[in-house]
Amino acid sequence: MPLVRIDAITGRSEAELNALSAAVHRAMSECFGVPERDRFQIITEHPRGRLVYDPGYLGVSRTDGFIFVQVLFSAGRTPEQKKAFYARVIELLAGEPRIRPEDVAITLLENERSDWSFGQGIAQYLVLPKEQWK
Amino acid sequence: MPLVRIDAITGRSEAELNALSAAVHRAMSECFGVPERDRFQIITEHPRGRLVYDPGYLGVSRTDGFIFVQVLFSAGRTPEQKKAFYARVIELLAGEPRIRPEDVAITLLENERSDWSFGQGIAQYLVLPKEQWK
Amino acid sequence: MPLVRIDAITGRSEAELNALSAAVHRAMSECFGVPERDRFQIITEHPRGRLVYDPGYLGVSRTDGFIFVQVLFSAGRTPEQKKAFYARVIELLAGEPRIRPEDVAITLLENERSDWSFGQGIAQYLVLPKEQWK
Repeated sequence: MPLVRIDAITGRSEAELNALSAAVHRAMSECFGVPERDRFQIITEHPRGRLVYDPGYLGVSRTDGFIFVQVLFSAGRTPEQKKAFYARVIELLAGEPRIRPEDVAITLLENERSDWSFGQGIAQYLVLPKEQWK
Repeated sequence: MPLVRIDAITGRSEAELNALSAAVHRAMSECFGVPERDRFQIITEHPRGRLVYDPGYLGVSRTDGFIFVQVLFSAGRTPEQKKAFYARVIELLAGEPRIRPEDVAITLLENERSDWSFGQGIAQYLVLPKEQWK
Repeated sequence: MPLVRIDAITGRSEAELNALSAAVHRAMSECFGVPERDRFQIITEHPRGRLVYDPGYLGVSRTDGFIFVQVLFSAGRTPEQKKAFYARVIELLAGEPRIRPEDVAITLLENERSDWSFGQGIAQYLVLPKEQWK
């Protein structure tokens, strides 16, 4: 259900990008009930200056390690679930010293179940019974 | 009205990307009534590993030919129209043996007519009579 | 609050991209009340042919200088504010002869305040008093 877009400034190692990708997916699984296999992400690196961020907005001190995560998924999660998700992503990155919590911004975007086709021209969430969403 | 983002893994030929671009646009025209000239798309290729997909979620068998299509357009289409659209995109790609139906995922995202300016700083859908939307 | 995606065809100078980035941000500040420091943008250049546009839809004459600006921000602005925003972006670009008003398309996309974390795993708009949104 989710399509995750991760945008980072060039210079991250594969291991760092993989850790980030995995943390976002695991947090979605834990906090939003996203199925384990429902993992679709687009990871894009940008030259310095093309991923524009403010180094201090809202009292958060950001660096060129800045990363923006955008999650598009079906509507229905509560603000409490969303808060738990943001916190969990950061918690799961605790073992990654080169990914500073201050450098990870996240935004969520919602659509409807009818807005997804996962291949073969079928709107799976409209035609498959929920037990098969895996 | 629509802004289509097509994300593919590097390795597609120009002909394949063009066929995909044309199929998505024609299906929007047929199923959603999008005007012929209302074609705005962003096609991006990604190195392997940066367009992350699950090879089997929902029983669909995906390969590195995987493509994600995201359509942003004004709200108002029914789930039935959306289902017809997904099916039509795949149908129109029938002549493209290198684009497997299982590898084409699609997601839709809606906004409002007031959310579009097509140039010159004007919100055309608010100020132009509908007969001139072409 | 906003995440702005700016997509242009390769060939723009740094000065042009900077002028565009600044114009979009200043117009958001003036027309939507976005804080000065709330500036987050992703600027991407695309090879010719990968940013697809129609050269005449809605009577606007576009060239390969075409640019698409997508603004994601919290819901709540009126159509009048949106109209003022589109017009203001173009007005602020008046000193840039290489950015034609006809070549700047804009689309807006809305989510909710709970949909943003600006770092540290916190949903700042839910937990910080509004006076501190700066």
